[in-house]
Amino acid sequence: MGKKVLVLGGDGYLGWPTAMHFSGKGHDVTVVDSFLKRKWEMEWGVQPLIPISPLHLRVRAWNEISGKTITMIVGDLTNDRFVFKLLEREHPDVIVHYAEQPSAPFSMAGRSQAVTTQVNNIVGTLNLLFATKRHCPEAHLVKLGTMGEYGTPNIDIEEGLITIEHNGRSDTVPFPKQPFSFYHLSKVHDSHNIQFACKVWGLRATDLNQGIVYGMDTPETRLDPRLCTSFHYDEIFGTVLNRFCVQAVANEPLTVYGRGGQRRGYLNIIDTLQCIELTAENPAQAGEYRVFNQFTEVFSINELAQIVQEVAAQHGIKVTIEHLANPRIEKDDHYYNPRNNKLLELGLNSHKISDVLLKEIIGKTISSKDAIDHHIFRPTIKWRQDN
Amino acid sequence: MGKKVLVLGGDGYLGWPTAMHFSGKGHDVTVVDSFLKRKWEMEWGVQPLIPISPLHLRVRAWNEISGKTITMIVGDLTNDRFVFKLLEREHPDVIVHYAEQPSAPFSMAGRSQAVTTQVNNIVGTLNLLFATKRHCPEAHLVKLGTMGEYGTPNIDIEEGLITIEHNGRSDTVPFPKQPFSFYHLSKVHDSHNIQFACKVWGLRATDLNQGIVYGMDTPETRLDPRLCTSFHYDEIFGTVLNRFCVQAVANEPLTVYGRGGQRRGYLNIIDTLQCIELTAENPAQAGEYRVFNQFTEVFSINELAQIVQEVAAQHGIKVTIEHLANPRIEKDDHYYNPRNNKLLELGLNSHKISDVLLKEIIGKTISSKDAIDHHIFRPTIKWRQDN
Repeated sequence: MGKKVLVLGGDGYLGWPTAMHFSGKGHDVTVVDSFLKRKWEMEWGVQPLIPISPLHLRVRAWNEISGKTITMIVGDLTNDRFVFKLLEREHPDVIVHYAEQPSAPFSMAGRSQAVTTQVNNIVGTLNLLFATKRHCPEAHLVKLGTMGEYGTPNIDIEEGLITIEHNGRSDTVPFPKQPFSFYHLSKVHDSHNIQFACKVWGLRATDLNQGIVYGMDTPETRLDPRLCTSFHYDEIFGTVLNRFCVQAVANEPLTVYGRGGQRRGYLNIIDTLQCIELTAENPAQAGEYRVFNQFTEVFSINELAQIVQEVAAQHGIKVTIEHLANPRIEKDDHYYNPRNNKLLELGLNSHKISDVLLKEIIGKTISSKDAIDHHIFRPTIKWRQDN
Repeated sequence: MGKKVLVLGGDGYLGWPTAMHFSGKGHDVTVVDSFLKRKWEMEWGVQPLIPISPLHLRVRAWNEISGKTITMIVGDLTNDRFVFKLLEREHPDVIVHYAEQPSAPFSMAGRSQAVTTQVNNIVGTLNLLFATKRHCPEAHLVKLGTMGEYGTPNIDIEEGLITIEHNGRSDTVPFPKQPFSFYHLSKVHDSHNIQFACKVWGLRATDLNQGIVYGMDTPETRLDPRLCTSFHYDEIFGTVLNRFCVQAVANEPLTVYGRGGQRRGYLNIIDTLQCIELTAENPAQAGEYRVFNQFTEVFSINELAQIVQEVAAQHGIKVTIEHLANPRIEKDDHYYNPRNNKLLELGLNSHKISDVLLKEIIGKTISSKDAIDHHIFRPTIKWRQDN
């Protein structure tokens, strides 16, 4: 029995594969996007390695190839009338919410981008919460958060809540947040707003504090070149492992920020789809706000660089590693031990970076080598700017 | 040697007395306001017990009476050009930031008010942080937060930070937040943003997590009737103790929400001025984000109602107490033990509710008895609404 699934941000790196994945499993999928990220890409002069056709065309290709039907709607979550009408008409069982400004460097580029990031993300999510309360209070909100909400505390990172013993008393409270950027802060603000909405209105939500995603393909994107998803390798929208793979193929040094001891959680895009599906299949209870930490492995930046160096060598590519002055303000040598039990307990069968996956990314990048823009690797946005 | 002090939200209940207080002490004071709160008062049909003349007139009266000069500027913090020009020209030593939507019930009235509250408060504060970085990075930001950011955890509430022992390791991290409303959430969002700006840009800030303020007069408002500050007793902008005093004089029952066991921190408006002054005189270090819990006593709502009942009896007024179904979602019987050591250590000489202060409020309310609007006591805004 298929569910009615709304994928918000359905044009994006993860949104589009998620939509195809749910559609392929027999769910009734509607994708929504405002294409604001496409506009931001134009502003910064960056594009995915492999050109991505308009969402209209990809939806048409998917419907033709799969024999299923994804429905597409254009609209912006910061427009409250749009959101209320959307939920009134669609009445979803599951709302997968990716529709936010997703880049930490973008949010640190200046006042305008910081305010844009926080207003876009907070207002979109508030509108969604109010519209859900009004039109589909039983819907399960699956919200993409980030592991970056926690920062790098010197204690183990639990999943959302921590039990504190203090002066002879005990309570279970939200895990303290020490986010890395105005983008990560926007996700912290969202988390607090969503938790409140669950408590006060009885909504149900799962906040997925996701690690850094890598990878280019999913079973659905492999079906046809027209179905590929946006693979960024630039300083704004490119996540580190994807960028390293492209730098290797481009014969550029892998640019490590600072000493490279920054440890973070990572996962393959295939595992993102698994995690979203497991979450949707096991919804939160009415009034419940859950947090799952969504990553499969922890690496330091130095470890990642070495892994890419080794895999590149297997393709006959000799890669150097260059340490840059860190444009970010972050610890580059620290304790890091986050939990990720909850999705594993739901049955996540995780793919490791050591599998064939990295070879596949590098192999596919080689076939697009001529398209690589060498100007967009280096960080130009600094956390501590002079302006 | 006077400091250059900017009081943002200088038209308000606390902003105006703060401006006069600093001016009277010989500081160079500029008040800024957008009068948005006056507009919101019109929208809801509420006004202070004693009419408040336009800020232009009060500033003129103060300058005439005191022989000092407060400068007044009209502008909105959500206008970034205004804020940048303001700080470039004024170059303040201290920025006292009251300029936010201050009401929890307002923020819970509906989607529009929730979004207005969060956007207004977050964007105004972000603009202020960026303009400070640009034009006066040494300025000390004194930001009004609220004790309501913490909620009512089952452990002692520390001042901003808590040291957690967890699985054999230890760290000092931000105290977990469980705010009561979209308004309180906006203050939590601000706190996270300000803390980040101090860490990344080296700004200095003190976040004053203030309790519920009561009182009508300060030494400066007593100088002349033209200098009085806005005393609200309505469900939107009236804080509970002020409302109880007016209900008593109006021969209306004191309306307690739920069982009345809600415990909160309170302070007299005179102590607010003392706290702001002590904070300004002892600035945070460059890069330091401090939190002071700003209250002097803790009471349950039932205790407050009984205190008002007793003081009213001394004025020959017989008052009843009525328990209403709680329009808010909050525990009405809970542990509550917040710290307030930091301001006491700086020399706060606190006034207790048992002093003559409450008699003065009730006495002055009696002389304005005919102005009381009986329609604006009862709560109409519910946290769990049907719409």
